[in-house]
Amino acid sequence: MGRAMGLAGLLAGLFLVSAVLVSTSLRHGAPRNQPEPAEWEPASGAVPSEDSLWPLPQRLRTSRRQLQLAPDRFQLVHGAGSSAGPACGLLEDAFRRYYEYVFGRPGRRTRGRRQLGAPARPELLRLQVVIGFQDPGCRGFPHLFSSEAYHLTITEPVAVLKADEVWGALRGLETFSQLVYEDDYGSFLVNESEIDDFPRFAHRGILLDTSRHYLPLKSILTNLKREVLTLMTQNTRGTLSSAGKMHGLFCMHLKWILQKSLDAMAFNKFNVLHWHIVDDQSFPYQSIYFPELSDKGAYSYNHIYTPTDVRLVIEYARLRGIRVIPEFDTPGHTQSWGKGQKDLLTPCYSGEQPTGSFGPVNPILNTTYDFMTKFFKEISSVFPDAYIHLGGDEVNFDCWKSNPEVKEFMKKQGFGIDYAKLESYYIQKVLDIVSSYNKGYIVWQEVFDNKAELKPDTVVQVWMENNYAHELSSVTAAGFTAILAAPWYLDYISYGQDWKKYYSVEPLNFPGSEKQKKLLIGGEACLWGEFVDATNLTPRLWPRASAVGERLWSSRNVTNLQDAYKRLTNHRCRMLRRGIAAEPVFVGYCAHEARGQ
Amino acid sequence: MGRAMGLAGLLAGLFLVSAVLVSTSLRHGAPRNQPEPAEWEPASGAVPSEDSLWPLPQRLRTSRRQLQLAPDRFQLVHGAGSSAGPACGLLEDAFRRYYEYVFGRPGRRTRGRRQLGAPARPELLRLQVVIGFQDPGCRGFPHLFSSEAYHLTITEPVAVLKADEVWGALRGLETFSQLVYEDDYGSFLVNESEIDDFPRFAHRGILLDTSRHYLPLKSILTNLKREVLTLMTQNTRGTLSSAGKMHGLFCMHLKWILQKSLDAMAFNKFNVLHWHIVDDQSFPYQSIYFPELSDKGAYSYNHIYTPTDVRLVIEYARLRGIRVIPEFDTPGHTQSWGKGQKDLLTPCYSGEQPTGSFGPVNPILNTTYDFMTKFFKEISSVFPDAYIHLGGDEVNFDCWKSNPEVKEFMKKQGFGIDYAKLESYYIQKVLDIVSSYNKGYIVWQEVFDNKAELKPDTVVQVWMENNYAHELSSVTAAGFTAILAAPWYLDYISYGQDWKKYYSVEPLNFPGSEKQKKLLIGGEACLWGEFVDATNLTPRLWPRASAVGERLWSSRNVTNLQDAYKRLTNHRCRMLRRGIAAEPVFVGYCAHEARGQ
Repeated sequence: MGRAMGLAGLLAGLFLVSAVLVSTSLRHGAPRNQPEPAEWEPASGAVPSEDSLWPLPQRLRTSRRQLQLAPDRFQLVHGAGSSAGPACGLLEDAFRRYYEYVFGRPGRRTRGRRQLGAPARPELLRLQVVIGFQDPGCRGFPHLFSSEAYHLTITEPVAVLKADEVWGALRGLETFSQLVYEDDYGSFLVNESEIDDFPRFAHRGILLDTSRHYLPLKSILTNLKREVLTLMTQNTRGTLSSAGKMHGLFCMHLKWILQKSLDAMAFNKFNVLHWHIVDDQSFPYQSIYFPELSDKGAYSYNHIYTPTDVRLVIEYARLRGIRVIPEFDTPGHTQSWGKGQKDLLTPCYSGEQPTGSFGPVNPILNTTYDFMTKFFKEISSVFPDAYIHLGGDEVNFDCWKSNPEVKEFMKKQGFGIDYAKLESYYIQKVLDIVSSYNKGYIVWQEVFDNKAELKPDTVVQVWMENNYAHELSSVTAAGFTAILAAPWYLDYISYGQDWKKYYSVEPLNFPGSEKQKKLLIGGEACLWGEFVDATNLTPRLWPRASAVGERLWSSRNVTNLQDAYKRLTNHRCRMLRRGIAAEPVFVGYCAHEARGQ
Repeated sequence: MGRAMGLAGLLAGLFLVSAVLVSTSLRHGAPRNQPEPAEWEPASGAVPSEDSLWPLPQRLRTSRRQLQLAPDRFQLVHGAGSSAGPACGLLEDAFRRYYEYVFGRPGRRTRGRRQLGAPARPELLRLQVVIGFQDPGCRGFPHLFSSEAYHLTITEPVAVLKADEVWGALRGLETFSQLVYEDDYGSFLVNESEIDDFPRFAHRGILLDTSRHYLPLKSILTNLKREVLTLMTQNTRGTLSSAGKMHGLFCMHLKWILQKSLDAMAFNKFNVLHWHIVDDQSFPYQSIYFPELSDKGAYSYNHIYTPTDVRLVIEYARLRGIRVIPEFDTPGHTQSWGKGQKDLLTPCYSGEQPTGSFGPVNPILNTTYDFMTKFFKEISSVFPDAYIHLGGDEVNFDCWKSNPEVKEFMKKQGFGIDYAKLESYYIQKVLDIVSSYNKGYIVWQEVFDNKAELKPDTVVQVWMENNYAHELSSVTAAGFTAILAAPWYLDYISYGQDWKKYYSVEPLNFPGSEKQKKLLIGGEACLWGEFVDATNLTPRLWPRASAVGERLWSSRNVTNLQDAYKRLTNHRCRMLRRGIAAEPVFVGYCAHEARGQ
């Protein structure tokens, strides 16, 4: 984050200019007689681009001068002097993607042509992307210290997008695509603008939980075509009703939920997928060393992420500048591990007798650490990110307390009856194992609270809602890096516009020095999966998580709820247009629907 | 309701027998070590049919004897002595539909064949449907006094479904389809059973709101095929990415939301769509007499229900035994009406000056009643149901109070300053208009509370959560028929399994005589649209509304939450299999997913 500010500092003379709004004409269907129209006035007609930017860039200067884009001519290209070129697959992919986001599907593209009699406008011919660093990062992975800053100048006849690395270019492409709008005549327009942008926080994450419910992904995207064709040709006997066809299409729709989430994350400039991949309920991760973990611990053979699936997610995320941080939570939350790994969990006792139930990971056996050593060796190599999330939350001591051998071990170690010490003993060993593979680690706040000995670069994730400011203060006072999740548990739903609650959180509003504040590197919106699966994940996550996205990206002073409401409403419509079933912010409709799109 | 009990009474010797459970084998992935597995144990392996019945039939006797169905041979047919035959389009359609629900799509049907070496089971060859009444009702519309009772006997080699009218046959087909299950080898099985069933309440409704957000429907279902083909052939230039295709499919998915809702209602034995079609925010109903109402009052020309659309909804509903009761709520909630109908709304004043804002319908002008006379003449003819919902809720008196002419009128009428009297004056006139077209009417409770003079057969809908039992008591004590909605406002969402709250409501638990109790004819689950549109409607409505469905259909003593949890979880999976994106009840997965379906 500190580094991202570098480029920004260089750009003197640019100020946060309040948006110059282009007046909207032809507002069909806008309310006339409504006493209080402001809140629910639908976005209709042409939406001035500044009204739909999300998250709001750090610095934005825009003019009334409109440039027109011709879909048949407009190009996204590598600019002169860029260290990236046509060999940069990541950018080439992004060009294709954003061309489609800007102009829509081919069937609609004729709309972009200038109407007879319409006034001739200056044309924007190209967007040139220029990567400044010698290594553009095309084949690399984004990381905590990647530069996501970019500078975008849109002037006739060519727009220029400058960034240190491809990661900034991806963010700038998103912003560019948000600036282009379609007027009532189907022309694609963009106002001359200059944008200087960078994230306020370096870690901007979404937690998804694939244990409570499996979240499907399509391993091979071209399967889609085959399935549709099958569906279309099945009807030879005339027995397949429309309902049947719908059912098939519907089912496909639910199959790419993880990719959809990554798409939407990119639209909101999130850069971390915190993949809470396993938990008590199921173990969908297919381990190479320990295949029995998922063979026995997954819901079924069809509820498994194979190594190919995992690679696909990581690559799909990488192409969008998103890190994938897997969480393998131990020693609690591990019921599903016990099915495929004998003796890993602690046998619980009732008096002298084992009950047949099992508790947290058994911390007193050498075999436990042998297993963890091998398991995390695999995880360290499968997941390229520099960090692994090791969990450590909500360890229930009851089973440990019931087990005679654990009690004996406690005595021997001099832990007395303080089972938090036993927990720390275990965690300490796991942290050491993971460190030995040159990985950093993130842990839930209990690990810090229970006074495990942590490496100075440990990241502590604060999740308990009760007095999280105090916790942030303690964690950073101890010199640890922190991530805030507590106020952003999106699985807690309630009636109405709860995005405002998430939006109004100021992460740095905790007692502490400037140095402490710098240790808060970001936050995460968490969508735990007890009540969420492919049927409701997308509308539950978006646009509620967008509120968190802007809080973590935009300037601290971007807090106006009325302005945010307007932009978020338009941003939500854009997500819808791009295939993300984001739920409505409030009453109304989307302009693209009014145009029949 | 009283009439439906008739058939039931005839069937002596049948008792509510607790389900004889077929033991499940091969529970792959079921939890082994979990301390408290009961709550979240996923449904896997073969699901005994009784474990997935929803709503639970009034009387059910089932045996361990399993019959097998061969997809290539099994037939749904009209039985000897039935008053319905192949000319009954409604039943023919239902046969096709339920054949597909039972056996799935054609691609899967080979699974139904008996495996070599598997034990030979007796076969169920046919389901014969016998309609007893002389007029089976094939071309008619369901109404409040339709018989939905049915009697289903499943024995080798033929099952018999007897009902007075087609409406009962539809309910029985649903139950039959719920009884058939697929074992781990892909065989379709059903246990020999006898079911005697009828609804506890005659009015079992879902309120959908198409004003706050437009809910799309596909006017011509075969459009789907064309759209998919277009999508598949567009890719000639190689420019359409997979994302683009997905987007297209995704968009189609959102287009048949109203039909999906009607499908799901039939799966849950709901029989009324309360279509809250217009409100302040928009007027999507395209009137034949007053086209300007939607021309100016709809969100856009693409957010309109044309007469063809309305006919489609009514017919789609009729084929599923569902009444469509439209609500045209006046005099409040009418902002959108004012755009297309001059002088309909009351001009609000600030002192001596009109503010330019408008309030409720203007009750003092003759033109208002001329308009309503013509408008409701149209509505009475467009909607075949015997009832129209006239609203009458939440009238804000501020604007009336501000208007000098209204004040003058109040004086002249001797209303003093009691604006509830003015409201009643208006409502009275509208009720008289609608009565003159031989329609019954439903009103929200305020109309009763404000002491409008109501015809004895008026139906009062109780919606205010505060002390609704008392309100039910008052309404029925006054001799009016009542519908309960208050505890079932599903737009109020909260964390966790709130279906239990809806399920635990006992509608008849209000002070009153037996005669009063008989006046409560049912209830409605209401999904108001402020925060709901096509993106989130289905998972928000289902299976939460299913809880209301069982409460209104099944016997009063069906209240066991643990049993309901198990059946609801399986029922939700069945809805998913049938293309309804019902959200999960809790953690777990569906058996059909484990089978790769």
